[in-house]
Amino acid sequence: MAGLSNLFAEIPADLPEELIQTLLGTPGLRIERIASRGHASPEGSWYDQEAHEWVLLLKGAARLRFEGDEPIDLRPGAFVNIPAHRRHRVEWTDPSEPTIWLAIHYP
Amino acid sequence: MAGLSNLFAEIPADLPEELIQTLLGTPGLRIERIASRGHASPEGSWYDQEAHEWVLLLKGAARLRFEGDEPIDLRPGAFVNIPAHRRHRVEWTDPSEPTIWLAIHYP
Repeated sequence: MAGLSNLFAEIPADLPEELIQTLLGTPGLRIERIASRGHASPEGSWYDQEAHEWVLLLKGAARLRFEGDEPIDLRPGAFVNIPAHRRHRVEWTDPSEPTIWLAIHYP
Repeated sequence: MAGLSNLFAEIPADLPEELIQTLLGTPGLRIERIASRGHASPEGSWYDQEAHEWVLLLKGAARLRFEGDEPIDLRPGAFVNIPAHRRHRVEWTDPSEPTIWLAIHYP
């Protein structure tokens, strides 16, 4: 990301869509900042990803569910490793403030 | 790290040494939490690392210097990419509270 050097900076007040910005990209690694505000995965839809994803919630609040499991409430500092092809969805993010995630995608 | 699931949890009040914990380790990636409190690199010593390191300061405050450059003040949310063999040192971390870092080592 040209310019951006602080994870908590430059979060638009309006987030009609999730904002996903790549902070570092190499052939074997992608580090993203994701800003959500009330976003959730569409009802009944699951992510099924080719790469592993390690995700850290930095601000805000979210609820994540792995297929077949109870939902997990995430607060700032919470991190979760999501193995490739482990189906999961974001059930909820806080609508009252931005939720900021760090996502690390790796093969 | 068996058990640890929040980056901000289980920081000892006393940190006679820096506390470094591996959160995720694969052949191509190591994610660490580092807790410092007043620690700095020994005077005149530089890190010269085989792997690249992407580092994010989450709490506290620190001052980082690359060899030949002015120091960089880091506050929460600040991130820096440190290429392999780019000599650098931590000049200062806040002695009054723990400084928490996320460090991502990659080849």
